[in-house]
Amino acid sequence: MSGTWHRVLLAEFLGTALLLAVVVGSGHMGETLSAGNAAIALLANSTATGLALWWLILLFAPISGAQFNPLVTASLVVNGEVPWRAALGIVLVQCLGAVAGVMLAHAMFDLPWLMQGVKPRASPGLWLSEVVATAGLMLTILLGRQRAAPALPALIAAYIAAAYWFTASTTFANPAETLARAFTTTFAGIRLVDVPAFVAAQSLGAVIAWGLARALAGPTPHRAIP
Amino acid sequence: MSGTWHRVLLAEFLGTALLLAVVVGSGHMGETLSAGNAAIALLANSTATGLALWWLILLFAPISGAQFNPLVTASLVVNGEVPWRAALGIVLVQCLGAVAGVMLAHAMFDLPWLMQGVKPRASPGLWLSEVVATAGLMLTILLGRQRAAPALPALIAAYIAAAYWFTASTTFANPAETLARAFTTTFAGIRLVDVPAFVAAQSLGAVIAWGLARALAGPTPHRAIP
Amino acid sequence: MSGTWHRVLLAEFLGTALLLAVVVGSGHMGETLSAGNAAIALLANSTATGLALWWLILLFAPISGAQFNPLVTASLVVNGEVPWRAALGIVLVQCLGAVAGVMLAHAMFDLPWLMQGVKPRASPGLWLSEVVATAGLMLTILLGRQRAAPALPALIAAYIAAAYWFTASTTFANPAETLARAFTTTFAGIRLVDVPAFVAAQSLGAVIAWGLARALAGPTPHRAIP
Amino acid sequence: MSGTWHRVLLAEFLGTALLLAVVVGSGHMGETLSAGNAAIALLANSTATGLALWWLILLFAPISGAQFNPLVTASLVVNGEVPWRAALGIVLVQCLGAVAGVMLAHAMFDLPWLMQGVKPRASPGLWLSEVVATAGLMLTILLGRQRAAPALPALIAAYIAAAYWFTASTTFANPAETLARAFTTTFAGIRLVDVPAFVAAQSLGAVIAWGLARALAGPTPHRAIP
Repeated sequence: MSGTWHRVLLAEFLGTALLLAVVVGSGHMGETLSAGNAAIALLANSTATGLALWWLILLFAPISGAQFNPLVTASLVVNGEVPWRAALGIVLVQCLGAVAGVMLAHAMFDLPWLMQGVKPRASPGLWLSEVVATAGLMLTILLGRQRAAPALPALIAAYIAAAYWFTASTTFANPAETLARAFTTTFAGIRLVDVPAFVAAQSLGAVIAWGLARALAGPTPHRAIP
Repeated sequence: MSGTWHRVLLAEFLGTALLLAVVVGSGHMGETLSAGNAAIALLANSTATGLALWWLILLFAPISGAQFNPLVTASLVVNGEVPWRAALGIVLVQCLGAVAGVMLAHAMFDLPWLMQGVKPRASPGLWLSEVVATAGLMLTILLGRQRAAPALPALIAAYIAAAYWFTASTTFANPAETLARAFTTTFAGIRLVDVPAFVAAQSLGAVIAWGLARALAGPTPHRAIP
Repeated sequence: MSGTWHRVLLAEFLGTALLLAVVVGSGHMGETLSAGNAAIALLANSTATGLALWWLILLFAPISGAQFNPLVTASLVVNGEVPWRAALGIVLVQCLGAVAGVMLAHAMFDLPWLMQGVKPRASPGLWLSEVVATAGLMLTILLGRQRAAPALPALIAAYIAAAYWFTASTTFANPAETLARAFTTTFAGIRLVDVPAFVAAQSLGAVIAWGLARALAGPTPHRAIP
Repeated sequence: MSGTWHRVLLAEFLGTALLLAVVVGSGHMGETLSAGNAAIALLANSTATGLALWWLILLFAPISGAQFNPLVTASLVVNGEVPWRAALGIVLVQCLGAVAGVMLAHAMFDLPWLMQGVKPRASPGLWLSEVVATAGLMLTILLGRQRAAPALPALIAAYIAAAYWFTASTTFANPAETLARAFTTTFAGIRLVDVPAFVAAQSLGAVIAWGLARALAGPTPHRAIP
């Protein structure tokens, strides 16, 4: 991880904030303009998110590793690349950044800065979706770092854009993002009460990815996200 | 083909399963959300499939060659790169993975794990479509390995996303996938009784691609998918 | 231009045929499925065409230069890269391939193999559109070969996908394609009587591109498409 | 900045004109065809603009740096890469090119060459959107030149296509473009009276990006756009 400590924190804050601003903003724009056709809204949402992920990872990876996700940070801790204490600070900043990004999206669309998520997201299928979505993301990162490092930013972006469509939950796959999306009533929102089960499912998915990556390719080598 | 034998089988199982989960899941999500406008559903379906193919090929190619398709495996046998006995195991695992992927998609969307395909897909135009779709795919692989190996994963993905639209069958081009899609009633489904003719057409397409590749570029060299 | 003469002709025939099959097939699929919303049909049409162009250029460029367009072939003649007699054969094969591609698309969709185009396309704005569309395409090829050769196939594909939308004619920009599209009544069709003015406008656009390329970058160097 | 002075001016004129022709033309085409579903129109508009930006930057960057935007030119002046007097000429040509591009789009669609923008775009959310949109663009350029130069053209294109969706203003982020869009009543238009506030917000965004880039990566090095 290059860059001094305050630059790492600033990059994680800005990157996670912009990621959430894109997820919430493009979801709201899509829903507002699509005259009730949610497929068009989701197509706009998934395309914007995929493009923005690639953009943000390329821009911030040289500074902080472009983690933007507590489960990614946790995997770096397990792999011995980030110390526990640093990880706590990074995860805190990711959560703050995510909420700030939601507020920024609301402000741009002349909405109240904070709202309470009202969309219920709780069912066995949705929980399984989050297990699969996060396992896919973490497997991509773990295998991709070994095998396809230069393409990894685009690989993550392509995966997420596809995962919006093939998982029933439209793929949160990120505890900080899940928490922040509990503060919007727009297209991307979730009830706060549904957040813990989502985070549990995501954590299980990350563990499964770890096992699959070892079975497929042996222990991961010690190198940070490209 | 690098990787030990069990890793090859695991990669082919996982890769084919995820491919089918994307095809069936994104088709179902698109159909559900698009308020009856099938063009938007197919746009979501083709975009998600193209992005996922690129992702899966890049991730699994270093382990198993990212075959995911009995006709690709057969072409490696003909070319002397994979022995017959190994190919049988790989194809079996591809078929099992494909069905498992359909079940995974169903489970994520809270549907019965296995259903019987009901969409009739039988006409001269559809059979011709499968000949063309598979010839295009195999020609891309055969020529692309010689001429454009680094771009081949993206080339295959771009081809399939386009082929969803210019063939009347929306391009199955894969016997394992065709079989597995007989177990879903959703957007991507097919009647089981229509599967054999599709597989026959696909096989004919592969033979035509072999002839075209020889005419265009001479016998294929002995190298595995990038 | 590598490859023996019959391989060049086969590549130009196949490539132009597949290009037209994509243009006509994806246009028809889009129009059929989109419930009267022509913007969705055009989005499918432009996306499929862009992806297919990239695929076809990468696949056939090493064999024939992936010309697929009489104006591209003419520019190679002017630049001294292809002799007049060879160009006549290539252009003939492009026209035959283009018509064959339209017939293939019709056959896949269980339509009559040849139909008479009925969509009127004649107005000053449409002619200006074809001047601009072709000037943009030829300028891309002329400048791109000098300055951005490795990216040229993707550059052409991106340009065409964008040009579908910003020109009123949806960008034909290719005399062989324009002729062939007079044989379909589907989404991509044109009246035969409107073809000559389109071809004249396209030729004018090519001449303008030649002048702009010289003004921007001096005479073009003597090298074939990437 | 390579190329002689008149080539620089010609490239900036042509590039900015084509950029505006794409923004206005694809917006109008999308609105006309989408049967009142503005989300589809914006999807076409953002896709076409993103593809065209990548195309134009790759084509013209070797000649003029593909600035196309007075704020980009201003940042080159501040960084000591372009002298003040040259910048004035470049910005004048960008404004003339932008208006010419709007006229070209109108002519292609058989509309009056110049119209008066009537779409009101004035609210705190829209102004904040332009601050964010321009800060994102300039940060991408400032950081990307240091860290990801080969990917910068695609990075800018991906950013803009995403920014169309997550900002409430659909991202103008360019004073010359904003001015020119006051001369169209079509989808992309803006009232002339709303232009000054947009330009002020964009300038503020550029200053914020400058500060963020310094905080994240130290002073920018002295090198032109890729």
